[in-house]
Amino acid sequence: MSVPRRLRLGMVGGGDGAFIGSVHRIAARLDDCYELVAASLSSNAERAAASAAGLRLDPARSYAEYRDMARAEAARPDGIDAVAIVTPNYLHAPMATAFLEAGIHVICDKPLAISLAEGVALASLARERGKVFALTHVYAGYPMVRHARAMVAAGEIGEVRLVQVEYPQDWLAEPANQSEEYQRDNWHNDPLRAGPNGCLGDIGSHAYHLAGYVSGMLPNEILAELHAFTPGRRLDDHVQVMLRYANGARGMLWSSQMATGCENGLRLRVYGTKAALSFEQENPNELWLTPQGGSAQRLTRGRVRSAAADAATRVPSGHPEGYLEAFAQLYRDAAARIHASDAAQAVPELTLGMPDVDDGVAGLKFMDAAMESNRQGSRWIRLAE
Amino acid sequence: MSVPRRLRLGMVGGGDGAFIGSVHRIAARLDDCYELVAASLSSNAERAAASAAGLRLDPARSYAEYRDMARAEAARPDGIDAVAIVTPNYLHAPMATAFLEAGIHVICDKPLAISLAEGVALASLARERGKVFALTHVYAGYPMVRHARAMVAAGEIGEVRLVQVEYPQDWLAEPANQSEEYQRDNWHNDPLRAGPNGCLGDIGSHAYHLAGYVSGMLPNEILAELHAFTPGRRLDDHVQVMLRYANGARGMLWSSQMATGCENGLRLRVYGTKAALSFEQENPNELWLTPQGGSAQRLTRGRVRSAAADAATRVPSGHPEGYLEAFAQLYRDAAARIHASDAAQAVPELTLGMPDVDDGVAGLKFMDAAMESNRQGSRWIRLAE
Amino acid sequence: MSVPRRLRLGMVGGGDGAFIGSVHRIAARLDDCYELVAASLSSNAERAAASAAGLRLDPARSYAEYRDMARAEAARPDGIDAVAIVTPNYLHAPMATAFLEAGIHVICDKPLAISLAEGVALASLARERGKVFALTHVYAGYPMVRHARAMVAAGEIGEVRLVQVEYPQDWLAEPANQSEEYQRDNWHNDPLRAGPNGCLGDIGSHAYHLAGYVSGMLPNEILAELHAFTPGRRLDDHVQVMLRYANGARGMLWSSQMATGCENGLRLRVYGTKAALSFEQENPNELWLTPQGGSAQRLTRGRVRSAAADAATRVPSGHPEGYLEAFAQLYRDAAARIHASDAAQAVPELTLGMPDVDDGVAGLKFMDAAMESNRQGSRWIRLAE
Amino acid sequence: MSVPRRLRLGMVGGGDGAFIGSVHRIAARLDDCYELVAASLSSNAERAAASAAGLRLDPARSYAEYRDMARAEAARPDGIDAVAIVTPNYLHAPMATAFLEAGIHVICDKPLAISLAEGVALASLARERGKVFALTHVYAGYPMVRHARAMVAAGEIGEVRLVQVEYPQDWLAEPANQSEEYQRDNWHNDPLRAGPNGCLGDIGSHAYHLAGYVSGMLPNEILAELHAFTPGRRLDDHVQVMLRYANGARGMLWSSQMATGCENGLRLRVYGTKAALSFEQENPNELWLTPQGGSAQRLTRGRVRSAAADAATRVPSGHPEGYLEAFAQLYRDAAARIHASDAAQAVPELTLGMPDVDDGVAGLKFMDAAMESNRQGSRWIRLAE
Repeated sequence: MSVPRRLRLGMVGGGDGAFIGSVHRIAARLDDCYELVAASLSSNAERAAASAAGLRLDPARSYAEYRDMARAEAARPDGIDAVAIVTPNYLHAPMATAFLEAGIHVICDKPLAISLAEGVALASLARERGKVFALTHVYAGYPMVRHARAMVAAGEIGEVRLVQVEYPQDWLAEPANQSEEYQRDNWHNDPLRAGPNGCLGDIGSHAYHLAGYVSGMLPNEILAELHAFTPGRRLDDHVQVMLRYANGARGMLWSSQMATGCENGLRLRVYGTKAALSFEQENPNELWLTPQGGSAQRLTRGRVRSAAADAATRVPSGHPEGYLEAFAQLYRDAAARIHASDAAQAVPELTLGMPDVDDGVAGLKFMDAAMESNRQGSRWIRLAE
Repeated sequence: MSVPRRLRLGMVGGGDGAFIGSVHRIAARLDDCYELVAASLSSNAERAAASAAGLRLDPARSYAEYRDMARAEAARPDGIDAVAIVTPNYLHAPMATAFLEAGIHVICDKPLAISLAEGVALASLARERGKVFALTHVYAGYPMVRHARAMVAAGEIGEVRLVQVEYPQDWLAEPANQSEEYQRDNWHNDPLRAGPNGCLGDIGSHAYHLAGYVSGMLPNEILAELHAFTPGRRLDDHVQVMLRYANGARGMLWSSQMATGCENGLRLRVYGTKAALSFEQENPNELWLTPQGGSAQRLTRGRVRSAAADAATRVPSGHPEGYLEAFAQLYRDAAARIHASDAAQAVPELTLGMPDVDDGVAGLKFMDAAMESNRQGSRWIRLAE
Repeated sequence: MSVPRRLRLGMVGGGDGAFIGSVHRIAARLDDCYELVAASLSSNAERAAASAAGLRLDPARSYAEYRDMARAEAARPDGIDAVAIVTPNYLHAPMATAFLEAGIHVICDKPLAISLAEGVALASLARERGKVFALTHVYAGYPMVRHARAMVAAGEIGEVRLVQVEYPQDWLAEPANQSEEYQRDNWHNDPLRAGPNGCLGDIGSHAYHLAGYVSGMLPNEILAELHAFTPGRRLDDHVQVMLRYANGARGMLWSSQMATGCENGLRLRVYGTKAALSFEQENPNELWLTPQGGSAQRLTRGRVRSAAADAATRVPSGHPEGYLEAFAQLYRDAAARIHASDAAQAVPELTLGMPDVDDGVAGLKFMDAAMESNRQGSRWIRLAE
Repeated sequence: MSVPRRLRLGMVGGGDGAFIGSVHRIAARLDDCYELVAASLSSNAERAAASAAGLRLDPARSYAEYRDMARAEAARPDGIDAVAIVTPNYLHAPMATAFLEAGIHVICDKPLAISLAEGVALASLARERGKVFALTHVYAGYPMVRHARAMVAAGEIGEVRLVQVEYPQDWLAEPANQSEEYQRDNWHNDPLRAGPNGCLGDIGSHAYHLAGYVSGMLPNEILAELHAFTPGRRLDDHVQVMLRYANGARGMLWSSQMATGCENGLRLRVYGTKAALSFEQENPNELWLTPQGGSAQRLTRGRVRSAAADAATRVPSGHPEGYLEAFAQLYRDAAARIHASDAAQAVPELTLGMPDVDDGVAGLKFMDAAMESNRQGSRWIRLAE
């Protein structure tokens, strides 16, 4: 079996000290499918160059401006195959647009965009250009999440009746982050850079994606309350949502960045007519399955037999994998899709779990509806078709 | 130190096979504060007599009719000091009324009544007659719940910002309980006997009580969706509520009897500005305390120093106590109050944690508001003063 | 169905402030099978009388001397049916002897005796007199322990290959209990009252019993190291044992009263050729079953179907039972046996799980062998037949 | 700050399908400190070449024979800086010797060698040549293990009194691995390739290393029983050891490959005079700290402040890291040491936690003593100086 070549990867954003840029780079490297060869690591030229040196990049391929990068790389015979976009939210859509238009595949941090219109346009463009568009809803890269999704799809828990998803964090409750200064200066509280919402888009969107990813259903109506606990805060830091699904199922979603003492507490529970599933992001190597009236079973990565999970795993059961491996999985999926796309082949089946631009649009519809419901005093709102 | 006499206890309801009657009897016996001497165990005279024999009761003090029992016992020099009411919901208020009017202290299963008006009248009567009225919101009897309440009251978690409470069970999702027959015949689905709601009153009321008990706050506005998943069901089997508190705090309450695979999953999380608390009823000997930004601590019954918890415990740390001990605690509290009341003394401080008729009224206000919100399509509703 | 009369119970030991006496009394009361009517609560006459008053006992049936009590109660037409012995270890055997000789059934705290010879004699006497002799190895009263035992007996885990049992506590590591004074004055460190060992008999014997109770096997060879960490300590406070079984199985037993931070950490794991079981005393409502190569299952009391567990349970799944209920179970078993014995009927099958005098003898053989192995520098020692 | 160049890495062993080879490659890649440029992936030339192609290696640098590789690479100006040795046990020492003699740094899978003499010689050689020698006791790469080690070293748990370590797996209990054929053909049961022991060296050595790594102490006397459950098995599959330390501390070590249902259950508990620590490899992002008499605290990676842990971590708290990151940490440590060594600088302080050739020798002394104790019928044996 011949091994496919390493893809040439570019990166926009992710200069020194940017947490998520470093995560993307480890993820790209982990399965040896990519080589980072070009970047626009910062809009500040000096910082971009210094960061590029720290990554041992060819200075000629370190760009201060992403439009230059798209143009120059598209023109090179050894130009990048794909770009990773890891900038503040408001730049995602324009950047992705530029690279798609240059014929370059895109791996984009979520949220897809800061407005639904922008997101819809981007989805059209991606489809039109036939390029791969991965959206890093990282929690979809966990093997046990994939197994849960496969179990629901195979009818193993029966018809879904209830969805309970929550995503509490505590970082905005830190005294330092409660200050007036912080609220004024941090881009997470700046509507121009973060977009029109805070916690909702930061982590509520992850919770919403995970619930849909595993349950295989999106709600058709939601009701929301957005709230900001912190004085001087312009964007929400706390989100409560109720969900109604077409089949009569019900659900609740809660995300908060003010949940004292919580680290990264994403948790999903899906209750079907036959069994229930429970997954906690902080213990990602296990998935709990409880049949109606029966005993909870702790399914573990590597031990439970599952094509979906096996394709997303690297080491045997009992050897924990984590967040970086989940992230790497999205990169690995994207690589397989890019090779297939470039060879005009069908999308490989085991990469169907890769979140893409359509997931991004679905998330924006949810955020729009949640904001609208909140504006109307928590009325039930139908999600856009 | 002289030991107070055993109180003479009567019981209404709780004949052979009634789960909760047996629980009340064990609870009354456990701390040796009561002696069961009279009962009206069933409205069916034969069944009442047989059940009484099974409990080794004097046949002369086994009554077929609770009004007779109230009258006869009140007239005896050795008549009962207190009555335990463990019948279907619709009988709680009329029975409690009869015994209070006969000058007998009352220990009543929840809910207090099937309408707010009825409950308010009962509260007035109890106050007027100066009798002890214990309402068995049993989860308030757990030592670690009492410790949580004491910590919040002492400001140890700061100001409360978030309350998350849930109470999922799966018993109505059992195939046998999904049948048409079951829905027709079981009193839990009969508005005449259960009252105007199902899951809301059965367990939602426990969740609401626990949240208020620990947080020390009741919401001033709520928004609810009640739902029945089962065809042919007349009462709700699933409840979702959002909560707003006067101090700006937010909350969510979820209770369901359709939550596949859940046994008795009452869980409360309270997030304050300084720390968070988490309690799960199925592991009642522990309480989790997590300071903002810090490490979770597993506080354990018997090990954590706490007057409130110590007064509600019997065996050292590491020797688990459970549901029956929590129930017994309410009986023990009630006994201490009854002795004090009969001696015209003040309410003993360590019994202040005993849920009473006012908790019952607060619960009925919550249920009323939840039903009203649901009728209006999940609008925010102010709770009655 | 007619209900058996309450048995008349006497108690020796257990005066004011004695933890275990109070536990026995609650246990006796919980299932309403006994009535405490006579006692010798202390060898100090004044303290005995005061304690008796605190328990509302008839002063005429409060005895200062246990031999008087045995004689007087045996002579009364309404004399006690059974006696609970809850004194320091060295008194167990002489007291049990006196009551057996008076024709009174015995419920005795463990250890059975302070020497194997004494224990063997007691077992002969009990057999000869045909009296019920319950030994309160309380952990055998937990429903999930009974279920584990039944599973092993039914071959559900295959042949047992490994037994791992441990029982760490931390109370002797408390600074106050590390003092010279404590070591001098506390009866747990006095060979005359505690017997020739410390931790070994206190809790090692519980661990050994539990392992045999569930696995259905006793070792035929053991190797031990006993140790005392505390200066001035005359008895062991730390025990390490290796076990070999006739079928080739291996095992380890560890008990310590110096295990910093441990409350009452009795834990048993049994590995068979088909599956493994794991039980932790601090979470007694669950039992973990893991098939070879498969997923762990959390079996819960009330939910797992099991005659053995059901007979030892009172409330439904999700409503935790604890230590007092386990203790009560031994009393309930003993009551059923006593009624059967007095009626010359066979031992009721569901009481076969009650630990008795033979368990006590087996425990003494283990302790003897462990002390002998230790004396010989941790040599393998065959257990006495 | 200038970034050090990527080190050129060679690999011996780890051809297609070899689990541990793939792990080493991911580990080497994860932090971008190495580039794999040469290999002898199999002693079978064809398989070596095919595996090399699968890794996109230059065919000219794929070797069939490790001695050729050592010689050729040492001669190249762009020859490898370090070699990873991932072959069956009996080859570790001769291979490491060859590369050290060629002046190449070594990263070697454990065990160091198959005899103590061989290991001691290797340690001398490494010291003499002044080369970095990393031994992949991977569990020492976990941040919370490093934090535990740092806490003990800083006296935060007081003086260590007890060490309990266990490492159960179930893979040899798999029916397929119980067959005669398997026992005959698998190298893990071949003394010529695996060395003179089985479970003891495979995983017992990891358990022993972890206990010493965290506690900061090695025992001076041990007592062991080795056992093989499987008919036809030539090497042990089950190990039980007791430990005595110079300061009077006691300990137990248990490792088994016959522990039904266990995945990779390495667990360490260390009890000091002030507090206890507990770590489970399957949940490596947390470490439990329990003060004497107090409440257990769940310390988490990224949240607990610790230079040792921080230096071994990549993503924030709540974003789980796992086995591959722990492995990568050893590679990262080795890289820092290699750069320092090549620049004739001191060993960087934060790499002091990297297990090296001396850890390998200590492990071999333990294995020797355990085999000797077992031969003598489980006598106490002093460890070699």
